[in-house]
Amino acid sequence: MSSSAERDFVTAHLEDLHADLDAWLRIPSISADPAHAGDVRASAGWLAEALRRTGFPTVEIWDTPGAPAVFAEWPSADAGAPVALVYGHHDVQPVDPLELWEHPPFEPTRVEGPDGPELHARGAIDDKGNVAFHLLGIRAHLAATGRNTPAVTVKLVIEGEEESGSPHFADLLREKRDRLDCDVVVVSDTGMAAPHLPSAVTSMRGLADAEITLRGPAVDLHSGSFGGAVPNPLHALAQLISALHDDQGRVTLPGFYDAVRPLSERERELMGRVPFDEAAWLAGPAASRTTTGEAGFSTQERIGARPTAEVNGMWGGYTGPGHKTIIPAEAHAKLTFRLVADQRPEQIADQVRAWVDQHLPEGIEAEVHAPPGGVAPCASDLDSPYMAALLSSIAQAWDSSPDDVLFMKEGGSGPEADLVDQLDAPLVFLGAGLPTDRIHSPNERVLLSQLHRGAEAAAHLWRELATVAR
Amino acid sequence: MSSSAERDFVTAHLEDLHADLDAWLRIPSISADPAHAGDVRASAGWLAEALRRTGFPTVEIWDTPGAPAVFAEWPSADAGAPVALVYGHHDVQPVDPLELWEHPPFEPTRVEGPDGPELHARGAIDDKGNVAFHLLGIRAHLAATGRNTPAVTVKLVIEGEEESGSPHFADLLREKRDRLDCDVVVVSDTGMAAPHLPSAVTSMRGLADAEITLRGPAVDLHSGSFGGAVPNPLHALAQLISALHDDQGRVTLPGFYDAVRPLSERERELMGRVPFDEAAWLAGPAASRTTTGEAGFSTQERIGARPTAEVNGMWGGYTGPGHKTIIPAEAHAKLTFRLVADQRPEQIADQVRAWVDQHLPEGIEAEVHAPPGGVAPCASDLDSPYMAALLSSIAQAWDSSPDDVLFMKEGGSGPEADLVDQLDAPLVFLGAGLPTDRIHSPNERVLLSQLHRGAEAAAHLWRELATVAR
Repeated sequence: MSSSAERDFVTAHLEDLHADLDAWLRIPSISADPAHAGDVRASAGWLAEALRRTGFPTVEIWDTPGAPAVFAEWPSADAGAPVALVYGHHDVQPVDPLELWEHPPFEPTRVEGPDGPELHARGAIDDKGNVAFHLLGIRAHLAATGRNTPAVTVKLVIEGEEESGSPHFADLLREKRDRLDCDVVVVSDTGMAAPHLPSAVTSMRGLADAEITLRGPAVDLHSGSFGGAVPNPLHALAQLISALHDDQGRVTLPGFYDAVRPLSERERELMGRVPFDEAAWLAGPAASRTTTGEAGFSTQERIGARPTAEVNGMWGGYTGPGHKTIIPAEAHAKLTFRLVADQRPEQIADQVRAWVDQHLPEGIEAEVHAPPGGVAPCASDLDSPYMAALLSSIAQAWDSSPDDVLFMKEGGSGPEADLVDQLDAPLVFLGAGLPTDRIHSPNERVLLSQLHRGAEAAAHLWRELATVAR
Repeated sequence: MSSSAERDFVTAHLEDLHADLDAWLRIPSISADPAHAGDVRASAGWLAEALRRTGFPTVEIWDTPGAPAVFAEWPSADAGAPVALVYGHHDVQPVDPLELWEHPPFEPTRVEGPDGPELHARGAIDDKGNVAFHLLGIRAHLAATGRNTPAVTVKLVIEGEEESGSPHFADLLREKRDRLDCDVVVVSDTGMAAPHLPSAVTSMRGLADAEITLRGPAVDLHSGSFGGAVPNPLHALAQLISALHDDQGRVTLPGFYDAVRPLSERERELMGRVPFDEAAWLAGPAASRTTTGEAGFSTQERIGARPTAEVNGMWGGYTGPGHKTIIPAEAHAKLTFRLVADQRPEQIADQVRAWVDQHLPEGIEAEVHAPPGGVAPCASDLDSPYMAALLSSIAQAWDSSPDDVLFMKEGGSGPEADLVDQLDAPLVFLGAGLPTDRIHSPNERVLLSQLHRGAEAAAHLWRELATVAR
């Protein structure tokens, strides 16, 4: 175990980090549900107060047409110091099905796990945990280096709509372009392969979503009087969704793969270095009986490096107790698509409409609702000095060496691509999550040791980045 | 317009019929929803009181493990008079989607329609309207014939679970076999082709239902971390349901057609006599854009004489506001099957299980819940004297002649087959409904003129049946 002044400070002040995270996690900031709009606002308010308490001289709540973002800035006193911008989000996923939670999702609960103590709550890692460790990290940086201001100018922009597809984030970046100007973006919304496998994410997939409504009869019909003679929207929806993938597991949207950059041998080799026990992954995090997917690609490539289409929700007709003998008037499906370079989310809506038109049976009308926005895919430059600083910081915090830090492709999505587009700055990823953290699922958790190392890595990172020439 | 003492009495006492039906329709006796169990019981209580008030010397409420049935008997003083048993039900369908009702479903509302005044409410015709006209009908019979007791012994059994598949009705018939003994069953739960086309139903389809649950991952999974690599139960459900029919519109359950009696030329000829304007039917009652279904059969045959499979409800995953990027753990579908002679509902569950096993993708587990019971198909004997008495009564009430009364095959289902099995008595059908009454849909209605003629036909029927030798 290497020792450092940063680690000593973090270790001495863990209770501050735990107390902050507990308080923040009690705020149910679910951005997808309008009923929780007030809670998302309260979450922004809590974070702003915590940043002021930490010492940031500038802290502002930035309103948007949706949920507010939080901005903070702590300038370095050193002339010519680089500027780093931390990105994260303070909103969380919905919690249903609630009955599958072992503890109330918004009452943070300490649980003793096989890898040490865990904290269970919605947002424990995604993304309040990943943001909270920066509160302690910058204090550790200042204490360890004996400085009054950080070695680099540290800015944070923590948005409130990431779990809803960040519909207003790109506009916010445009509007606040000058305030957010920076040399490097530090994304804290990801994780690593395992507690003993320090690693850095190097890319994220994009996201596009669409909701499909199929309409048949003008009203629900008696299946005894009309069954077998008029189109049933539920049958049509089943036919449509069953045609979403071909027999090779490829997505059938016309043109879906046209912009997909083929995986290079180097990328496949780097991904292959990450140990992956498929049986254990299936039995554990994937909680599934078998793998499936696009022919010709490994499970890691399917979830990290290839585009996908998933139906997230489907409904129509009578779903109550007993049975109701109807042909329903409508059927609905919610779909999301994961995108990779160089796909663009704004291309998907037209592809979905064309695909629906191809598969729509006679007598059924379709409506496709594809909200604007979405998320583009993005990637780090593996050879930049910022990446070198990141790898050094991770290596120190996880008792490893920079050469042993693994590269991962994150299958999830965030507005990181907007940061690249709008701020014209390179990305590095510093996150403490694990594949086993059950984000977006019941019983989301964070491994406390990961949280502590994340705070330490953040402290190292501000020192390391100061050595990078602008 | 022919005149008769029965018609004169009915015409003079229409307000009694309207007042009774209004009061009964205000009771939301939805048998499929346990929350309305008390209302179904209240509906039975109301009917029992109305039958006593009408003069039935014997009125009893018969409890079952589910909702109660109502029994009434009015013996004829004439030695050797035939015994007729009226069957109907006092429970109603659920009312969702509530927002599509132009008037509250349980506040009966008079509406002036193209064919004269209508009464809008859930149950207006199915089946409270069809039962209520017997209250006035038997009074008209007694007044017109100057009798103190009906010319035939009249029994009624009005059950409370028909819209839930009559799960306990067969047992009740077994238990009360002696009390229900009769020469003919008069089913009042159907209708005719049009107000100007007096007609008699001669068969009904059977019904079987099944609920299918598909399970994939043990919990909802993050579609970014697992999408494209594990089976999605919603994709599997879509594949399964899309295979429910082949490209000829035939149901793919193994053995589904084995017991189906082929349509005879005489049956097809009789069905063909019923005028049917497919374009008008599509634009009106079917409220659909096109017809579909089993190849080689007319629309009338598809809805009346052939077996069918319909998905009545389907759900799974996230269906709330916004989007949630998950692979859901479960997917669900509710199916019902319409059966014709000589299919048996108890055969369907095994056929569904075999069919699910055939189409289940790897990594998905299925659970098929097929409740016992169901409904067998049944038919009238077109050449019996009871049918002659029915046709004569309908002809008098609708100002027609017995030879002009049309025969119809009812696509809907009821426990009529249990009555045949348990009571060993022939069936005739006397109902005042119309294909345009929107039963099981929002804005269910009854045409008041049909209700009035139904009451008159019932009055004639007791007199006509008395002439049939036992």
